[in-house]
Amino acid sequence: MLSARFVQYGLGPIGIGIADLASRLGHRLVAAVDIDPAKAGRPAAAFIPGAPPDVGITADAAAVLNAGADIVLHSTQSRLAQVLPQLLPLADAGLAVISTCEELAFPWYHHPVEAASLDALARSRGVGVVGLGVNPGFVMDLLPVILTAPCREIRHISVTRIVDVALRRLPLQHKVGVELTVEEFRLGVAAGRVGHVGLPQSAAMVAHALGWKLDRIEESVEPVVGPAHMVQGVHQMCRGIHGDVGLISLDLTMATGPEHPRDEIAIDALPPIRVTVEGGIHGDQATYAIVVNAIPRVLSAPPGLLVPTQLPAIAGVART
Amino acid sequence: MLSARFVQYGLGPIGIGIADLASRLGHRLVAAVDIDPAKAGRPAAAFIPGAPPDVGITADAAAVLNAGADIVLHSTQSRLAQVLPQLLPLADAGLAVISTCEELAFPWYHHPVEAASLDALARSRGVGVVGLGVNPGFVMDLLPVILTAPCREIRHISVTRIVDVALRRLPLQHKVGVELTVEEFRLGVAAGRVGHVGLPQSAAMVAHALGWKLDRIEESVEPVVGPAHMVQGVHQMCRGIHGDVGLISLDLTMATGPEHPRDEIAIDALPPIRVTVEGGIHGDQATYAIVVNAIPRVLSAPPGLLVPTQLPAIAGVART
Repeated sequence: MLSARFVQYGLGPIGIGIADLASRLGHRLVAAVDIDPAKAGRPAAAFIPGAPPDVGITADAAAVLNAGADIVLHSTQSRLAQVLPQLLPLADAGLAVISTCEELAFPWYHHPVEAASLDALARSRGVGVVGLGVNPGFVMDLLPVILTAPCREIRHISVTRIVDVALRRLPLQHKVGVELTVEEFRLGVAAGRVGHVGLPQSAAMVAHALGWKLDRIEESVEPVVGPAHMVQGVHQMCRGIHGDVGLISLDLTMATGPEHPRDEIAIDALPPIRVTVEGGIHGDQATYAIVVNAIPRVLSAPPGLLVPTQLPAIAGVART
Repeated sequence: MLSARFVQYGLGPIGIGIADLASRLGHRLVAAVDIDPAKAGRPAAAFIPGAPPDVGITADAAAVLNAGADIVLHSTQSRLAQVLPQLLPLADAGLAVISTCEELAFPWYHHPVEAASLDALARSRGVGVVGLGVNPGFVMDLLPVILTAPCREIRHISVTRIVDVALRRLPLQHKVGVELTVEEFRLGVAAGRVGHVGLPQSAAMVAHALGWKLDRIEESVEPVVGPAHMVQGVHQMCRGIHGDVGLISLDLTMATGPEHPRDEIAIDALPPIRVTVEGGIHGDQATYAIVVNAIPRVLSAPPGLLVPTQLPAIAGVART
């Protein structure tokens, strides 16, 4: 199996999980970046159990550009505007990148200029850059696209994802508004603190793969309200529309104790396809794995800002 | 959308369906091959509604090598030994090939020498050759592999496929033994006339993608016996084994009127994944579509004998 030399950029819970799994699968951590004063300056192994003892964490991203890495595993923020200043120097230094930045999974629709800039830079430096994760990056976009392989006359694609966040980490519960009042929830949505980022990117990625031109992508973010009017989570809907026709419908609930957690994909086509993932593909573990499993695919991909649908099948691993 | 110039090689029910769909999607049929005396010499349009009126059917495959095609859509037989003499001259002439030959989907395990020969020839001529279909080629191999993307610690993969052949074409019903006696069924299996071809290839493809070394692949073919001891179809099981450990289990029933037709994929891993395709991905229509949808992917793939898992996502089409 291929062993890559990697930089871990971002040591939040997701970044730590990614770096730990990558290390245990035989990839070598050569540098780690985090601006948190509680982390910078300390050994990476203090946070990443599988990290080599000699790698320290630095707050200075420029310092890792010459660390001899093949690839950067990047996990900092959700918005393209936030991460672009972090990613451009990496690509410029000839480093491949896999990022969990949600908007990077398919930035071409909402941020075509920024996407084209990053793409041109990555091409010129001969490296692949891709945004990947479970959602966006798999369950509401790549997987539905793959399920269209045996289809013709595709009229509509809908994906329903219902996640029980009760057993997930606390930051995720806060991110979907658990235990807020409805007013606090709405303020949080307006401020960008509450809600899932990525549904419009998933809709745009599906449309891109199928050759559909979307005139607009609509999204709604509503609270799931429980007893005593407390918020239990978020219900987001996103529609991809051409003319007056809805082509893509994404329906995401992330809340404590929803009924029948699952992922459901329905393709209205010839033949019709209806797929249920019982319990859903859940957990941060899945995000760690898809990022690490993609390393060989991204390193051997043609250079540029890649769409997950442009990669060959990302296979999982048998042992850690 | 890319428009390819294609040869249709084999005008059985599947070949006709493929060529018709390809034509209606804007690809151009430039030659057609079939050895059936009832077809050779006649216009292709007599059998393929969407075919151009000026293309005839020839029994002489050598005559189509210089027809100016980009790709050959090949649908003749199930066994590699049968199709290899047909495929080698095509690759040698610099033609890409998508074939529904079941054993071609992953010939590396059972026929490594033949696979390596075809691979070397295709590489030297700069063309991609791939075996594709719904099964093998998608539901019991490519799709399970793709579903491992978010997984680590994969211990076992099982796929159950239950197909109701009552509504399918008669040749398929005969192929799975419908209305034979048990003795006729067993004679048919022994003679290679009865049973589904491809389960061992699917098991080998899954193992290859996951980096599993299989020591052996076992297969059983049993009749599904109904009232009055008549055969209603076939039940085939295939196991991929390493040492004493079963890693892959494929369970296929193709019969008239089975309970709850479906495809089911279970991945014993972290996280575990359990997927049901309600009703299953069924129908020759799905085979036509996956072959035609793969044309752009195969034409832009690196040259050689390709595994379906090495292609980027094959997206379906919206209109025909």
